[in-house]
Amino acid sequence: MSPSSVPPCVILNEPQLAENIGAVARVMANFGLSDLRLVRPRDGWPQERAWPSASGADWPLDNAKVFDTLEAAIADLKLVFATTARPRETRLPVLTPREAAAQLSADVALGRAVGLLFGGERAGLETDDIALCQGIVSIPIDARFRSLNLAQAVSITAYEWKMTVDDRPWVKFEQNVEDPADQSSLLGLYGQLEDELEKAGFYHPPEKKPSMVRNLRAPLARARLTEQEVRTFRGVVTALSRGRGRVLAKLAAKGVKDEPET
Amino acid sequence: MSPSSVPPCVILNEPQLAENIGAVARVMANFGLSDLRLVRPRDGWPQERAWPSASGADWPLDNAKVFDTLEAAIADLKLVFATTARPRETRLPVLTPREAAAQLSADVALGRAVGLLFGGERAGLETDDIALCQGIVSIPIDARFRSLNLAQAVSITAYEWKMTVDDRPWVKFEQNVEDPADQSSLLGLYGQLEDELEKAGFYHPPEKKPSMVRNLRAPLARARLTEQEVRTFRGVVTALSRGRGRVLAKLAAKGVKDEPET
Repeated sequence: MSPSSVPPCVILNEPQLAENIGAVARVMANFGLSDLRLVRPRDGWPQERAWPSASGADWPLDNAKVFDTLEAAIADLKLVFATTARPRETRLPVLTPREAAAQLSADVALGRAVGLLFGGERAGLETDDIALCQGIVSIPIDARFRSLNLAQAVSITAYEWKMTVDDRPWVKFEQNVEDPADQSSLLGLYGQLEDELEKAGFYHPPEKKPSMVRNLRAPLARARLTEQEVRTFRGVVTALSRGRGRVLAKLAAKGVKDEPET
Repeated sequence: MSPSSVPPCVILNEPQLAENIGAVARVMANFGLSDLRLVRPRDGWPQERAWPSASGADWPLDNAKVFDTLEAAIADLKLVFATTARPRETRLPVLTPREAAAQLSADVALGRAVGLLFGGERAGLETDDIALCQGIVSIPIDARFRSLNLAQAVSITAYEWKMTVDDRPWVKFEQNVEDPADQSSLLGLYGQLEDELEKAGFYHPPEKKPSMVRNLRAPLARARLTEQEVRTFRGVVTALSRGRGRVLAKLAAKGVKDEPET
């Protein structure tokens, strides 16, 4: 985004329950949205009951603007998409949330004010409301059960917006996955493991050893162990084989011979 | 999906409020999921309060399975992703919901049973729970406000799953947008409009006519009018120019000459 770009506003047309307005504010805050516009909220505004359901996302509620008409609420916007589960009545293009987010993002990058419009809980959006918009966002819900609540619908569209903002939103977590170990370290681990298994009579019958070794190495290779993890596994092999040594010593003391299992 | 493929199950680890379990069932039904698994629900199961918040999505609740351990709940699964806002503690790959859905979809296509794991409302998932999974799903929420509720987190991951199922989920709405009119029809409309504008002295100064015509045609072209809409617009032009004719007749009757505006 350019420095002057502003994320989409969220316009709720004739919302009913203050708790739902608060839930929408909570969702908005999660995805970096803050401009909340309310058109004829049923019970007036502000409503105290909204704030608890925002779970601390007070700022969209504190700064919410109230409008008498949808036309006034979207007057300054260059692009508005209407989210509706029933986009039959109009001849506007119907977009997935992903396509809509891409278009919103492109407009925001050009410094344009954009918005996402949602209808009231019960009635949704009227055809005349939708006709004020440039397109319809249709969330791909199951034809057999269409019943997303308002905050869930906002969460999916806002999530798609956020995905366009963050090229790689999870990059901050990449520290989780450290550099994988060198192949030489892995081969050292394989060698130690395979030697110990040989000593333990694991390769039985012996002609199967090559395939058995391959079958052991593959999962370790897929795990992309770090150097530390290689050291840990080497310690595991050492501990296991020494433990076996102690058992053998005990058995030998009792006169029992170590035989490969068959 | 192949005929034998089964959508991901949803595993809730130590969920607290029955209402939230119901809200999760509602979300699942919207996105075509039905296998709900509950690990040690705090208040036991079933809980009557779950059903009203499912808004009719009773079948995931009716068929929900309860487990004493997370290990038992995921025993039959080939791939489980843990959704958590705090994926710091483990060395599992961290995926966006989109990446996770792609992987789940690939496994489902191979006939593998897969699942999405969510933690309880308050505590989330323990490191040991996460370590049972093959990867972590991290929803890209704003670092300044991380507070998605359980059903919203499920809705975003389930939505991404649904997006992988539907190649073009909105295709059923395409009937909204009828075939655009032939170019010959459009040119007929353009010609009629431009002729009438000429008669009305619109092109002033005359040397600007070509660019004025271009500026009129462009938005009509972008609108991709249908044949019916072309007919409607032609009717509009006819009606407007006849109206102008009537005004001119009145003015002439009063001895006023029609002059192009300057």
